[in-house]
Order: sequence, then C-alpha cells, then structure tokens
Amino acid sequence: MKKFLIILALLLGSLSVAASGSVPVIGAQVFIELGQSSEEVDGWFRTLRENGMEVCRIRLFEEYIHNGSKWDYSLFDRAFDAAAKYDIKIFLTLFPTDPDRSIGGFKFPFTKAHKTAIATYIKNVVTHYRSHPNLMGWVLLNEPGTDGVLPETKYTRDCFKQWKAARPVWNGGGYERLMDFDKEAFLVNHTTDFLGWIAAEIRKYDQEHELHVNNHQIFNNIAEYDFPAWRQFLTSLGASAHPSWHFGYFSRDRFAVAMSANCNIVRSGAGALPFWITELQGGNNTYSAFNPFCPTADEITQWMWTSITAGIDGLIFWSLNPRAVGGEAGEWGLVNFQNGPSDRLEAAREVIETIHGNPEFFSSIKPVDSGITLLYLRESLWAERKVQMGDLGDARYEGRHQGGVIKSILGIYEMMLENGIGAQIAEFREFDWTQESYKGRTLVLAGQVCLPSESWEPLRSFVRKGGKLIVEGLTGWYDENMRCRFQTGFPLEDVFGGCLQESKCTPGDFTMEIGGKVLPVHLWKSFILPKGGEPVSLEAEGVTALRNRFGGGEVLWIPSCIAIGARRASDYIALSALLLPELAQLPVIRLAQPCPGVMVQRFHSGDREAALVINKSGKTQIVSFSIPAVSLIYADKKAELKVGSLQLCPEECAIVCW
Amino acid sequence: MKKFLIILALLLGSLSVAASGSVPVIGAQVFIELGQSSEEVDGWFRTLRENGMEVCRIRLFEEYIHNGSKWDYSLFDRAFDAAAKYDIKIFLTLFPTDPDRSIGGFKFPFTKAHKTAIATYIKNVVTHYRSHPNLMGWVLLNEPGTDGVLPETKYTRDCFKQWKAARPVWNGGGYERLMDFDKEAFLVNHTTDFLGWIAAEIRKYDQEHELHVNNHQIFNNIAEYDFPAWRQFLTSLGASAHPSWHFGYFSRDRFAVAMSANCNIVRSGAGALPFWITELQGGNNTYSAFNPFCPTADEITQWMWTSITAGIDGLIFWSLNPRAVGGEAGEWGLVNFQNGPSDRLEAAREVIETIHGNPEFFSSIKPVDSGITLLYLRESLWAERKVQMGDLGDARYEGRHQGGVIKSILGIYEMMLENGIGAQIAEFREFDWTQESYKGRTLVLAGQVCLPSESWEPLRSFVRKGGKLIVEGLTGWYDENMRCRFQTGFPLEDVFGGCLQESKCTPGDFTMEIGGKVLPVHLWKSFILPKGGEPVSLEAEGVTALRNRFGGGEVLWIPSCIAIGARRASDYIALSALLLPELAQLPVIRLAQPCPGVMVQRFHSGDREAALVINKSGKTQIVSFSIPAVSLIYADKKAELKVGSLQLCPEECAIVCW
Amino acid sequence: MKKFLIILALLLGSLSVAASGSVPVIGAQVFIELGQSSEEVDGWFRTLRENGMEVCRIRLFEEYIHNGSKWDYSLFDRAFDAAAKYDIKIFLTLFPTDPDRSIGGFKFPFTKAHKTAIATYIKNVVTHYRSHPNLMGWVLLNEPGTDGVLPETKYTRDCFKQWKAARPVWNGGGYERLMDFDKEAFLVNHTTDFLGWIAAEIRKYDQEHELHVNNHQIFNNIAEYDFPAWRQFLTSLGASAHPSWHFGYFSRDRFAVAMSANCNIVRSGAGALPFWITELQGGNNTYSAFNPFCPTADEITQWMWTSITAGIDGLIFWSLNPRAVGGEAGEWGLVNFQNGPSDRLEAAREVIETIHGNPEFFSSIKPVDSGITLLYLRESLWAERKVQMGDLGDARYEGRHQGGVIKSILGIYEMMLENGIGAQIAEFREFDWTQESYKGRTLVLAGQVCLPSESWEPLRSFVRKGGKLIVEGLTGWYDENMRCRFQTGFPLEDVFGGCLQESKCTPGDFTMEIGGKVLPVHLWKSFILPKGGEPVSLEAEGVTALRNRFGGGEVLWIPSCIAIGARRASDYIALSALLLPELAQLPVIRLAQPCPGVMVQRFHSGDREAALVINKSGKTQIVSFSIPAVSLIYADKKAELKVGSLQLCPEECAIVCW
Repeated sequence: MKKFLIILALLLGSLSVAASGSVPVIGAQVFIELGQSSEEVDGWFRTLRENGMEVCRIRLFEEYIHNGSKWDYSLFDRAFDAAAKYDIKIFLTLFPTDPDRSIGGFKFPFTKAHKTAIATYIKNVVTHYRSHPNLMGWVLLNEPGTDGVLPETKYTRDCFKQWKAARPVWNGGGYERLMDFDKEAFLVNHTTDFLGWIAAEIRKYDQEHELHVNNHQIFNNIAEYDFPAWRQFLTSLGASAHPSWHFGYFSRDRFAVAMSANCNIVRSGAGALPFWITELQGGNNTYSAFNPFCPTADEITQWMWTSITAGIDGLIFWSLNPRAVGGEAGEWGLVNFQNGPSDRLEAAREVIETIHGNPEFFSSIKPVDSGITLLYLRESLWAERKVQMGDLGDARYEGRHQGGVIKSILGIYEMMLENGIGAQIAEFREFDWTQESYKGRTLVLAGQVCLPSESWEPLRSFVRKGGKLIVEGLTGWYDENMRCRFQTGFPLEDVFGGCLQESKCTPGDFTMEIGGKVLPVHLWKSFILPKGGEPVSLEAEGVTALRNRFGGGEVLWIPSCIAIGARRASDYIALSALLLPELAQLPVIRLAQPCPGVMVQRFHSGDREAALVINKSGKTQIVSFSIPAVSLIYADKKAELKVGSLQLCPEECAIVCW
Repeated sequence: MKKFLIILALLLGSLSVAASGSVPVIGAQVFIELGQSSEEVDGWFRTLRENGMEVCRIRLFEEYIHNGSKWDYSLFDRAFDAAAKYDIKIFLTLFPTDPDRSIGGFKFPFTKAHKTAIATYIKNVVTHYRSHPNLMGWVLLNEPGTDGVLPETKYTRDCFKQWKAARPVWNGGGYERLMDFDKEAFLVNHTTDFLGWIAAEIRKYDQEHELHVNNHQIFNNIAEYDFPAWRQFLTSLGASAHPSWHFGYFSRDRFAVAMSANCNIVRSGAGALPFWITELQGGNNTYSAFNPFCPTADEITQWMWTSITAGIDGLIFWSLNPRAVGGEAGEWGLVNFQNGPSDRLEAAREVIETIHGNPEFFSSIKPVDSGITLLYLRESLWAERKVQMGDLGDARYEGRHQGGVIKSILGIYEMMLENGIGAQIAEFREFDWTQESYKGRTLVLAGQVCLPSESWEPLRSFVRKGGKLIVEGLTGWYDENMRCRFQTGFPLEDVFGGCLQESKCTPGDFTMEIGGKVLPVHLWKSFILPKGGEPVSLEAEGVTALRNRFGGGEVLWIPSCIAIGARRASDYIALSALLLPELAQLPVIRLAQPCPGVMVQRFHSGDREAALVINKSGKTQIVSFSIPAVSLIYADKKAELKVGSLQLCPEECAIVCW
Repeated sequence: MKKFLIILALLLGSLSVAASGSVPVIGAQVFIELGQSSEEVDGWFRTLRENGMEVCRIRLFEEYIHNGSKWDYSLFDRAFDAAAKYDIKIFLTLFPTDPDRSIGGFKFPFTKAHKTAIATYIKNVVTHYRSHPNLMGWVLLNEPGTDGVLPETKYTRDCFKQWKAARPVWNGGGYERLMDFDKEAFLVNHTTDFLGWIAAEIRKYDQEHELHVNNHQIFNNIAEYDFPAWRQFLTSLGASAHPSWHFGYFSRDRFAVAMSANCNIVRSGAGALPFWITELQGGNNTYSAFNPFCPTADEITQWMWTSITAGIDGLIFWSLNPRAVGGEAGEWGLVNFQNGPSDRLEAAREVIETIHGNPEFFSSIKPVDSGITLLYLRESLWAERKVQMGDLGDARYEGRHQGGVIKSILGIYEMMLENGIGAQIAEFREFDWTQESYKGRTLVLAGQVCLPSESWEPLRSFVRKGGKLIVEGLTGWYDENMRCRFQTGFPLEDVFGGCLQESKCTPGDFTMEIGGKVLPVHLWKSFILPKGGEPVSLEAEGVTALRNRFGGGEVLWIPSCIAIGARRASDYIALSALLLPELAQLPVIRLAQPCPGVMVQRFHSGDREAALVINKSGKTQIVSFSIPAVSLIYADKKAELKVGSLQLCPEECAIVCW
C-alpha cells in the first residue's frame, strides 16, 4: 500500500510565523574500509544524495592511514572526493588505534603513551581534513559509556588515585561509610575529562568545525554521563539508539516509546545545544546485537518521526552500507547487498521528502513545555547497581534488579505518552533550580532510591516557590553515603509532610486502592507517618499516599511502586486517573482518555500546536483529543480525522495540528 | 481483626506438675553503630522492655572501639547503661576486624597475625565487659558456615596440610580412591577448631558467662557443623533463621515447616544444652537477601510459636532497629522508621504476653519423643556436592541437584507434620547408638546417598536390638570413598535383606504402586534383589520394596525417590498411608488423617500432651485428631474446638491440649 | 510382552547373493579396575559370551601397571586370560597417566616430557600385549575432542606458534581480517598430529593389529575432526554415542534419529574403512551426564538396529560392568549390581541372536546410495562459534546459537528419515568431487553460514557436471576470512543464479509460502536478487526461492531458515512436499507420505532392498511405502504387514524387505 502525504504547503500557508533555522539533516554512516572499490564508494555517496540525505559519518580508523611514521589518507580522501561530488557533509569519528581493537572502540587511554599517540593521531587527522569544505565536524569518540565498569588498567587506577586525593574528606554525620560512590563518581569525571581533552586537542588545530559525541545504550549508561559538563566543549550532543543493542528494557512494540525517551533524555542533556540521533539502526542483525532483528519500514518511519518531532537537528543511520568483514559483516545496512535501496531506505526517503517539502513546518519544531519534568539522579542508579544480589532470573523482583530506577521513570513517561502529554526527562542537575517561581510546574521523582544531600535544598526550594512535586516508590531511601534517611531524620519531612513509616516487600505484583483507583503495584508497598501532610489514601496498616502543602507548592507522595506496577501490567488507565489531576497544570491539549498502545508525542511547529501519533496497539484505534485536532497533516497509511478524532491503522504514524 | 487468647491460667490450673525452669526469653538485636543518638539508644532498650523482651544481642565491631593502641568503649558502654536501665540482658557478638569487612563477618582468620589480633581483641573486650551485670554471654562468631567453600588463604592451606598429615592413610579395600572428602572433613574440623579456640580465649578471662554460636542457612551449611564437638565449649547452641536468606528450598507457604525443621536440627545438635533461635527475620528486605520479602504479622506469630513449642530457651529477632548505612540500610527492623512498633512487633508482643501470662505451661515445654528419628549424614551431603554437574536450571533433575539429600529428609519430615507426628532430625553421630534395646524406635534414612563404613555397624546393631529402620531413595549408594557399595559387596545385605539390583533414572516425576498405594516418585526408580527379605511390592521388572526381619528388628527398604516425589507433588496422602503403619510405634495422638498444608507440631508441657497447629493451606480447615483434643488453649484468630476437631482460618495458629 | 522374531532363515532362502564378510561384532567395555576379584572378572567375560558378545574394550590405565621403573600387568593379564577362556577379542584403550586424571582422559600431551612418557608407556604396553591372541587392536586415545577449546598449556602454545609460522600469509583480497580461524584450524591439525603420532608409536612395535579411535559428542566436536586425514593411520573409525552426554540437541523421542545421524557422519568419515560404535550407553546415570536417564530395553533395541542397519562393523556398549568408584560409580552398566543381565542386556542379546541367526542377511548390509548428500563445513561451525553473543537462554534465537549450523542439517536429515529416504551426511572434504558426472546426485547445503573459498570451485563444478544443489538458510554468508561474500561480489552468483539481496531477522518462528507450501520458518527470512535464475517464489518484498540451471545441473536456493523451522515445529510435511520433488532422483522406494515421529532408515542387504522402521510417535502407526514391502523380516513387538503397509506399536522396531 502506497503511503500518502497531505500536501503540507497548502495547509501551512496559514502558519503565522516564518520558519527559523532549517529542517533536520538526515544522513547515514558510510562505512569506509579496506578492499572497497572506487565505484562502490562513489555509489554510496550518490545513494545518499538520491535519497535526500545530506550528511554522513565516517569512522577514521588509524590502522587504515597510519603505518610507522607514514600517514596515507588515500582511502578516506577518496571518500571525501565522493562526498564533495554529491555535496554530502561529513562527520569524522575519531578512531585512534588501541591494543584491543574492540568493535565499538576503546573508551579510555590504556596508558600514558597511548594518550600521547592519540594526540599525535588527532594532530595529523585534524590538520589533514580541517580545510576540506565537506567536513562538518568531529565525533570525539565513538560511544563513550562502559556499562558502569571502570577499565582495570594502571592508567585508570592512577587517575583514580589522583582524583580521590583531591576529593573532600568524607563527612557522614557521624555514621560509618560502608559503601561509597567513589568509583562511580570518578567514572563520570574521567569520561568528561577524556572527552574534554580530545576536544581541546582538536581545537588546537581546528577552531571552526562541530564537536560532537554520541552516547549510547542510554538506559544503562545514563549514570556515567555528565551532559552539562560536556556542553562546555561540544557544539552538539548525540546518541546511538539501536533497539537491538540498546532497548533491552522494552518489548519490540514499545521501541517507539524507547526512542521518544532516548531523544528526550538527550535533549535535556544538550540544553541549549542542538541534539542529534547520531546512530539509528538501519538494518538487519545476523549474529550481532543482544536482541537481534531487522527493523520494518514502518519502524523506520516511526523512529524517524519520533526523533524529528522531538526536535533533533540531525539524524544519521547506522549504516548506509554494511561492513564487509568480521562479526558484523553484512549487517546493519540501509542498502541491500547490491547497494540498492531496502524498504527501510525507501521509508527514510519518504520521511525526508516530507520534511524537505515542508520546510516551514519542520524547521521550527520545538518540544512542548508542559511544565512537567521527570527527574532521575545519577546517585539512584549508582545505589541500585551497588546493592544488586545477582538474582536477575526471577521476574518477580524486576523492580529491585538493575534497571528498576530508570523503569520507574519510563513507566511515568509512557503513561504521559498514552495521554498525549509532553514531559521532559532530566538528570537532577540539568533542571533549572534558579527560577523565582515554579507555579504551574510539576516535578516527578519516581523510584529514585537515592536522593543525595545536595538535592534536598533545591527540592525544598522548588516546592516553596510554588512547584508541584510528585514522589513515587522508594524515592529517597538512601543518601549519597548509602545511609537510609528515613530512619535517621528524614531531611525532607517538612516538604513531604511526613516520613516513611515502613516499606514492605511482596514479590511480584498486587493491587492497591489509592484515591479511589485500583492500581497495579509491584514489589514494594509503603506506609507514611504524616507530620502535617494530609492522607490521600489510608489502609488499616497506615497511610499509603500523602498530600502536603509547603510554601507555595505541594507534594503528593506515594511511596509504593506504582510506576513499574503499571508498566508491568501494560495498563496505565488507573495511574493516569490518579496522577493527571495532580499535575500543576493539566495541558489543555491532550487525549480525552489514555489510549493503550498508542503513543502521542506533542510538539510545536512555530506557534502551532501539533502531535505525532503512533499506533503500536496492534489494532485500529480511534484517538480522541481533549480539543479536537484541526488538521491531519501527515499520515503514512490511511489515517482519517473525523470530528477531531483520529483513526489509525496498526503501525500507522500520523501528525495532526491545531 | 483482633487476635484473642483464651486465658490459659484458668485452664492450666489443672496441670499436675509445677513448671520447671522459665519461659523462653525473647529479645532482639539492637544494632549499635556510629552516629546514633543517646535518645535513640535509650528508646530501643525501652521498646524492648515495653514489648516484654528481656534480652538483646549487640555486635561488638572492633572498628568502633579500637584505634591503634587505644580502646574506647563509649559507644557500647552507653548501650550497656541503657540495658541496665531497662533490665535487658546482653549477648555480645564478637566482631573482630578483618581485611574484607564482609557484612556477615569472616569465618576464619586470614593469617596467623590476624589470629593474634583476634586474641588481643578478645582479651580487651572480655575483660572490659565481663563484670557488667547485664552481660548474658558471648556469641563466639557470627554465623560460621561457608556454603562448603574453604577460603583460599595461605593460613587455611597450611592448616589443611597439617591436618591431612595427621590423618590415617587411606585404605579402600584395594580400590582406587578417585574422589575424597578431605577438604570437606577438614572444613568441619577447622570450623570446630576455630570456635573452640575463641571459646578458650574467652574462658581465659571469663569463666562465667554463656558461650553461644549461631549457625545459619542450615539446609546448605549443615554438613560443615559438628555440633556434638561444639557442645564441649558452648553453653547453648543457636541458629540464624531468616527465611529470605536461608529457606530457599521452600516456598513461602512452607516457611513454618522450614522453621520447625531448623529448630529440630539445632535441638538435636544442642543435645543436653539449651538451644536458641539467635536470629529470626524481624522485618523487610529491600535490596538484601536472596528471596526478599517482608514477613506478615501472622508469619511472625507462626514462627515464634513454632520455635517456642519446639523447646527453645530463647529467641532473638534480627533486628529491633534497622542498620542506618550500607547495603542493608533501613531493612530488617521490628520497629518502623519512627522506632514505633510494626505489626510484626505487636504480633511478637502478643506471643510474649501469652507465655509470660502462662509461665507454668510455657516453662515446661519438651519435645515429644515419638521414637522416630530422621537421620542425615554429612558424607551424603559431601558426596552430593562432589558429583554436581552444574545443570541446576532443569527442574526435572531437582533430586540430583545439590539439596536432594536434605530435601529427602524434609519430605519425610513434612509428611510427619501433616500427620501431627513428632520426629527428630539428627546427624548420624548425634543419635544415641548405645542403648540396650531399640524396641519401639524408628530410624528413617531418606536419600542418604553415602553411608560411610562407620555407619554400618551402628545400623546393624540398631536393627538387631529391635529397632525399625526405614530406608528410602538412593541411600547407601556410596561409601566414604565414593565407592558404590551395592556392586562391590553390599555390607548391609544381611540387615536390609537384599541388595540393590538396579536404579533407573527417568527425568521428572512419575508414579509407582507400592503396598497398594499410588505414590508420586521423582527421578530414580530402583529394584531390589531379595536375599532373605520379603518383597512388599513387586513389578514385572523386580522388587521395588522389601521388608526384612533382622535380629529383633525390621527394615523396610524402598530405594525409589518417594520422599522428594511427595514433596514435589505437595501430596503426602499416599506416602502417609504407606509409611505410618510401618512406624515402630504409631503415636496414639496424631491426626486422624493427614491434613494437606496444615502443620501440626506436637509437644509436651510438663506431663500434658499438646500440639501447635498452623494452617498454611490457604483455606479454612477442620483438623481431626485420633484422640479428640480436650482444650483449645491458644488461638490467634477465631479457631474453635468442636467435638475434638479444630477449625482454623487460613494463616491461623492454635495450641490444643489433651 | 515377549518380543518375537520372524525366522529369517526361511525368508532369506530367497536371497540372491551370498553374504560377504561377517555380521557386526557386538561387545561391551569390561571396566577393569583395582579391587576386583578374579571371580568377578571371569564372570564378566562369561557374561559376554553367554550373551553372544565377542569383543570387549578395556581401558589400560597406566596408574594400574606402572610404578616408577616397574611395570606390573597382572591386573590386565588376568582379564586377558579370562578373555581367552571365553574367546573374547579385546580392544585396548591406551590410557597413559596425566596430571589431571580427568574421567574421560586427556586430549593432548601437557608437556614435551609428558609426550616422552606417553611414548614409553606405548612401547611397554604394546610390546607386552602385541602377541596375545585375543588382542584385537588399540584405541589410540579415548574420545579426542575438546568442545572447541584449545588447552592453555605451554606445550600447546608452542605447537600453535610453530604451526602458524608455517601457514601461508593471509590474502583477503584487500580486506582487513578482523576474525580468523587460526586457532580452530590448528586444533584440527593438532588433533590429527597427536593421533597420528600415537599410531606411529604403536606401529613401531606392532604392525598387525587394529588401530581405532572413537570420536565423541559428534554434534559439538564435529569441527575438530579431520576424518580423511585420520584414515591414513587408522584401520577403523569409531564413535562414542551416549545420548545422556552427547545428544543434547535432541529430545529423548528423537534419540534414534540422533543415533542414525551419528552413525551416518562417522560412516562418511570412515570412507573405505570400517566404522564402529565404540561406545553406546548401556545403563543408568545417577549423577553423571548432562541429561541423565536410564535407557529402556526398547531404546537399546532401537539404537542397535539403527547402528546395524547403518552398516557398522562393530558395536561396543559402555559398559558391561559399572565402575566401582568415583563420580560414575555404579552407573552405565549393562549388568545389574549382581552382575546379572538387565533388561537392556536381554534386549541386546535378542538383537545379537537375530543377527547371528541370519548371517547372510546381516553380513551384507550396505547403506543405500540415494545420491543425496547433506554437506557440512568445518568453517561454518567455526564461524558460528566465533560470533556467539552468549544469550543462549532465549529460545527465539535457537538458530543463531551454537548448534544452528548442525541443526539445519539435522532438520533436513530427519525429514529424509520420515520419508524413508537415505541421505549421507558428509564434511565437504569427504565428498568425492572428482567424478565426471553428477547426474542424479543431489547436494544439500543447509545453514552452512561459511563457504570457504576452496569450496566454490568444487560446488560450481558439481553443478556444471549435472548435479542438483539445494541451498538453504544463511549458507554462504561468510568466507573463511569472515568476509560477507554476498555484499562484496558473490562468487557463486553464476551457479546460484543470483545474489542474496537481504536477510531479515525476526525472533522466533513464522511461516512462509514457497512453491505453494506453507512452511514453518525460523528467525531469518531472506530475499534474492535473480541474475539469470528463475524465481520459484515471490513475495511483495522480493524473491524468496530461486531455481538456476547451470551447465548440466541446477541449483534450488531458499535462503530462509526452513530446516530449523521444520525441526522446531516437529512438522516436516510441507518441507517434504517442497524438497522431495527437487531431488535429482527421487528414490523409487520410500514412504508414500512422510510419517511424523516415525524413522525409516533404508539399507541394502546384498542386492535386497530393506528398511528399518522405528515408531517413536507415541501411538500406533500405519506406514505405507511407495512400493509395497514384500516381507516383514523382523519385529520386536507385534508389527504386521498388510497389503504392503506396516502397522507398528509405539516404540516398535521392524525390518521390512523388498
């Protein structure tokens, strides 16, 4: 069935503001390796151009250019020539050699000498390519992020020692410090340091081009990234987002939700900088990847629209052409083995044509600021990792396994998407705590088992200045010294209006009635001792939900695991009914009721309100908005807008406007 | 629903004997750590007193008192002061420092120097506290037991070498010795040695106070403990019994059975000494424990009554207050985060009030000697561990996985409990083999895959002197040299009345008809060649059960796995019908028929017959006794005794008397 | 129920040719170890004789004969005496001592000195026993094969270095070599070298007796064996085939299929040499083996007939008598603990009596040459192992887990057996590529993910010379340098008539319609770009099956995983319907339609056509042949032949003739 597009140009005549900037740049990795022919290389760049792609990424293997004291760039020069011929911009990924030759590249120097060699490599390659007109910029390092494991080298140990010596001496209020986050904090610092060092080395020779980094496997590596610190040396922030490697916390029908969350997290990390999807799975897995599969054309369409309407500046597929040799040989390609277009590339081209055909609309996309932020804290992820018992086989304990912290947020986020409500996911330190007033703003702390002491005053201040704080699950159990703060003087008692009384573990899932709604709950059920707060929900054993007015704001505290509970049940109806009325401001435009399996990502185009709707429910859905949508401006199947309700086929993507 | 108690005092007026001794002492660990306030410490001891608790345990961390050459006891002195104020006795758990700082403490010295440091610690702490009036005694070491793994230190290797040099030279009757139990036997010896050494060190400075040790995770560590040897230096024996850490062989609805078995094993180990539950899970798990959960008030009640009616001298919860820091921060507490009573503490208080209100009855509890002993042999557990293949994921092979040996006994034990018949579980060497006659006594060997040569003559003698021996499963397959004794001259052929002919492995479960009963059987089905014995059951392939009169006694031999079979099926009806008529003496008081999911633990109070009944079946049960019970003297819900039959709600505990 | 035999002698009177050679020799391992009595040893040899067995195997432990400079053979001389008394031939398994004393024996010398000691051992034992009249031959080494893991010793590393130095320099056509098969190729070579060295050492002292080797766990170790090279020094090739250790890729009801495939692979490996089942599981497992069980008498019958009708020269059970000590004590025996016959030994005796009673028929068994060969390539197994991700728990990915390559072949093979069609399984280099014409011959390449360059020309030539090639699954994805050959110039494009366009991974199973048949398919679905070939099956996305005439032959190419798909579904109906008409020659005698769960192994006896039929379907089956069978010449239950259709009970074995 042919996809169709409503001609946006006509509809958009009514847009009140002119577009600023340009539409997102779409492209793909061109994998340059030994053995390729000039024809092949030329063909790949032609293919990019023919499919509307304007940018590519190339991995600059030191092994292919450097031999003893000789530097021979012919392999990559040929690619630059082809790029120039077809007017394709190039992001060069630095790929200095290393003893391990791992497929994804090293994350830290192995030795001091290695670091010196890296500097030499940078000097050479930057001075060689800095004046090429098609050079767009540099990717500092492929996919920093170690899944929490500090490499065991002398170099790293020395760096750690030095870092630790400079840290303030521990003060735990008299308590012993049985567990610490030194290694974790160092890893964050060490990553930032190394990336910053690379950037500085490049800037010695090139002050002009883009400096970019692509994080990866965000839901696992998130606690290693200090994005605000990275902003100091980057010009844009990016992400690798391969469902088959990176979305293990999601079932396949939730990959669009995962992509939305991934974009959202990176957007927050980027701050004022542009953000990119630097790698998006473009093709099939054979033997590589944790959860291999081949994306369908529909999935490519869904992920692209999710990224575009999330506000990306650019998107680069991995990969245009498959690598020829090794463990990923023949995998990942957007083109088939004859370098012809796969159905995935055709799907990508249609999306590209749509944005190119409607530049006003797609050059002015901004996220909706609904005033809702879902906060995560690095320390919560550290704490969770620290206390793992290694019993990962038993699904009844999913919430206490690694991933529980982030799945709590994802549960809330998905609930928002099923209601068509935008929410920002942000690390605690990415949020702007300096405002005068937080009236109308909502913060959600879901499953954040560790609230370090530095978070207490900002939270207090947020609520005092009028904000609404929603607290879920075991949030606040530990501080940064793994001290349980509920039992030793809960520092936010005044703000929360009480203290945790008890938490009770029941393996698996059960239900609780809170505020008249019967919620699916997972693993931990908790009770609060009110100290000024007003019980929202009371059982024989105690208060299970508390509301507290503090300063100009309010806290709603539900210390049971209702976010993962709803996520495990794939049922957000009751959770929506409970939490939406609690938002500081319920967005005027949203779904009339949550739509299970449908993701609605809201955005602005200029002054215009819009929404991306993706139907992953497996059946035709009729989606009704609180305010009927005015126009259906894009659909990839046969969506219809009737009396403001949108009817979508399974797997369909549509964009509506108000 | 309010629990209620029948006023025992009235009923017990008729007791014919005065109580001897005192009721069990109940208490809890007070976890003393840095950072606590005097008010907190005072409050915890007050809480103990207010809830009828009279004893506590304190972990005496060397790190908190010893710095270089300075010893500062102020942290613990404050606790002793509070204990004195509220009249609480203290068990001090020795906790010398070690390089690893593991949460449960080390099990053996790391080096010779470490051992010297431990001696110094002991000297200091014992001389400091020995004259405090509230000191009750010393716990030598927290939870000895290594799950079978000898620590790999030079110290341990040297000890092993020395021990082995002193062992007699191997004599395998000409056969090669392909596997040996040297490491296993050494571990038992090494544990006893170290505990004995600690005791001796203490006794250098304190000849008065209690010396106690708490074993733990009994069903896994049981083969490392030589309780009779420990009796030489202990004044009481104890156990840690945390279902979430230690009862992994049981589903949650069988935890009361596990507690009963745990008490039973320790009671046998203690011999003439008193025995305690030194640690009983008092609260919630968050991230700690293998199978985390929070006990219900009902479970606390059930476990306490199980322990009390098993004849404990004392019971100490872990823990009154949660630890504030580290991987168990905020967990395990009987009190909530405000130091107020949890429903678990309230449940405990009710049990304590009941025993304090009825001292005559509860100070004279003795186990029923039904003449039935279920024997386990350390060598059987060693053998089983030795031959593991590591295929633990396949439940069809549960019986050959580690745990099969002990689960065989547990199957028989649970069958007894569902029939209201007391049975003692004992290590082979704990049984009294010196009697003149064993008329009326039954021994059960279930799944004891290794019968060492030293066991043959005692078993022969037992039967010759009139005892009844019931043998189940692969009992006797190996000797202590891992020689299969069935094929090389079965040494007990005269006693058993035959020899094993064949055993056949069929993965999973099946049924066999034995003695007219259709039994669930697991994994191994075996046939006997009679040599004098009389077939009880005959299939086309051969004899599946044999009865043999030998001397004054008799052996019933069923070499198929009917104990684990029944346990896996949760169906003891057929097994009961088969085995109960085989007991040397069928107790006069028992259930009229087995009651699935109901545990009936028989005991005496003075001369009076009594039984604890716990209904874990999930539905209301009517329990009928062979001789109608006379009085319902305790019930925690709404049990009723009608015409001698007891009606119980789900989860209810009751005590009846005759 | 008594088994019955149709008196073959009568029926066979009509056989047109005289038997050549002799019937297969059947025997068992006699496990000789310290501690046994002369009576026992004598009894075991008598038992062999009484049950028609004529050969045994004995493991010649160096530890039992060699002490310092003394060699004492008395233990084994006694066994030779008994063998002479009962006229039993002996295969002596060399078992030189080694530092590890592993139960299955070492596979390579540990050091140079060790190798020298092995030579000394060989010299001694060979000169001692070479002139004994009952010596049949030498088993060079027990079960070579390491499950792919090169032992990490200095000796092995040195050998590897030396081997690698002598290898030609890599030439990858300009491409980088990210992965290589050096270790894998070396392991094959190293194994052959060591076996050849042992053979040469023996031949220094004994030029007469048999030299034999038993490979084992064939489906896992197959890529380590270079059988054609072994033929240079062997006089017969053998296999250990213990379902409980070696058939983990099969469910129990498919063990007869596994036995058939195992025989088949070894037969191909043996070439012109005789082949044996050197070890066949004879008894029960207790704690040993990966998937323990005790074979039934029926299974013994089935496996023996499977082996006999596959054309073995001999079969030796493991073991007549169980080992007395160690981890396998009391296991594996054909005799019971009283050295009496088990039902398994009785079943074996009945089979032996049948072949002894009908020597003409059973001395002239030859495999049917149906012209069909299923090829596997060592490199495909190496490649598969190389790229494993370690996610073996997820059954949706079975095809990409280790074993996928061999299971693809097994799927095709089992399909053939359910149709009564013989097919040979052979390593690529075992096939005779030198013929002038391949008219009428079919080769199947199923799931052979790596086609090394040396395979291209033979395949091209095969088709050019008239052969039919059927290609399935991801066959040909990699070459021997792990270069994906579909994307970089597919070297067999002319032969296959096209190139792979794309492969798409969908976890789990799905269906595809190919040639009008709806096939179960697993994991990978692929599309072809025809270049001259004619599409057999076309979907919207592309061509899924291609037929190409090349030279005098033809290729059918279905690059989706239909073999494992059918195997996982246990449904070969559609696969049969698709592939049988594609065979170069459809055998005239076969089943009229595939019979699920029934295995039909075709063979010749002299000029006579025959088939073994085994019903593992769990229900009575009526099996109809394309040409009605003439006579039922053997049945072990109550099979009947009516109008050419054979009716069999569950578990029944029958032999029919034409």
